[in-house]
Amino acid sequence: MSEIVLHNYFRSSTSYRVRIALNLKGLDYRYVAHHLRHGGNRSPEYLAINPQGLVPTLVWHDGTVIAQSMAIIEFLDETQPEPPLLPADPAGRARVRMLSQMIACEVHPVNNLRILNALRSRYGADDAGIAEWFRHWVNETFQPLEAMLAQSPDTGTFCHGDGPGMADICLVAQVANNSRFNVDMTPYPTIGRIRDACMALPAFADAAPARQPDAE
Amino acid sequence: MSEIVLHNYFRSSTSYRVRIALNLKGLDYRYVAHHLRHGGNRSPEYLAINPQGLVPTLVWHDGTVIAQSMAIIEFLDETQPEPPLLPADPAGRARVRMLSQMIACEVHPVNNLRILNALRSRYGADDAGIAEWFRHWVNETFQPLEAMLAQSPDTGTFCHGDGPGMADICLVAQVANNSRFNVDMTPYPTIGRIRDACMALPAFADAAPARQPDAE
Repeated sequence: MSEIVLHNYFRSSTSYRVRIALNLKGLDYRYVAHHLRHGGNRSPEYLAINPQGLVPTLVWHDGTVIAQSMAIIEFLDETQPEPPLLPADPAGRARVRMLSQMIACEVHPVNNLRILNALRSRYGADDAGIAEWFRHWVNETFQPLEAMLAQSPDTGTFCHGDGPGMADICLVAQVANNSRFNVDMTPYPTIGRIRDACMALPAFADAAPARQPDAE
Repeated sequence: MSEIVLHNYFRSSTSYRVRIALNLKGLDYRYVAHHLRHGGNRSPEYLAINPQGLVPTLVWHDGTVIAQSMAIIEFLDETQPEPPLLPADPAGRARVRMLSQMIACEVHPVNNLRILNALRSRYGADDAGIAEWFRHWVNETFQPLEAMLAQSPDTGTFCHGDGPGMADICLVAQVANNSRFNVDMTPYPTIGRIRDACMALPAFADAAPARQPDAE
């Protein structure tokens, strides 16, 4: 079988998610870096793989190309069942996907680099305004997320029970991003506790942006 | 068994997605409207069900509460397998989730009501600016989406083969939203063709915003 290739960027939190998932599944992969700020993801070679020019993109052993981090994680979980990233029961799976999508569909999309750049170029947002925008949307979702995690009997060491899964992956990558914009994590003790439990695991720690070959 | 309840809003495109999925699965449900523009989703009664106060929220027969439209659709597909909203093979499932998430994680989040309102209140965006922002992010994703659909042998009458599924649900709801901001669909003939094929099916047509009890 050919190798697995992950097209990614050290600081991209969606790339970070996929690195954690690959590590949790124990899969080796070749790391190909695309520098988002320098347009490295707009090369003709990369656009031939992913017409959007976004990261991450996974190229599987058999040549299957998958973009979108959450689609990649579901694919990894379906093809490599152990350890599971989703629980076995439909209600539990729905809960983990719900928690994941609160971050993946609400927080990250409105705070990613291209949106922040658009706020600068279209509306003249300055660094302080950008940081305030970022924190606002984190807090909008982290407040109910904290409450849902703190109040649910399904929450364990991790977001759902005592094994790490999809929601933990999203949580860790978002908290890492938050630190770049000085989000006050004091109101989020449950999220912080789960983040710390995750970072004690090599699969999470080794996937951190600072440990990647393209880290600055 | 108790009834299924869908907390939703006629114009919300994430609500629209779930209505289509329920119709495709042949499931009856009770429609509870929450008027987003009038704060009807911030009532104490609704916040007790969904601490975020967002729509849609599904309350299943057994009382299970699920927020996030894509988590709801996955839950429906896992618990009511026929007709399937995802193909059987992992690569096909990844493709459909990827196409879905291009809309659900890139287009919709940056163009929904609360973001557009924030652009007005924070940056003084006017109606023309809001419409231009909306169209920009649609086009950023619809250009590669059109290419991916037009070029893939997996595309059939619908986004993946000849049965409607998760990606078609996202596509139809987004195209409906686009019409409110006069997005030119001329560059997207494949997306338009698939949208028309969907709207010929009662499951899609009956879920349209204009046909809901709270439509204005």
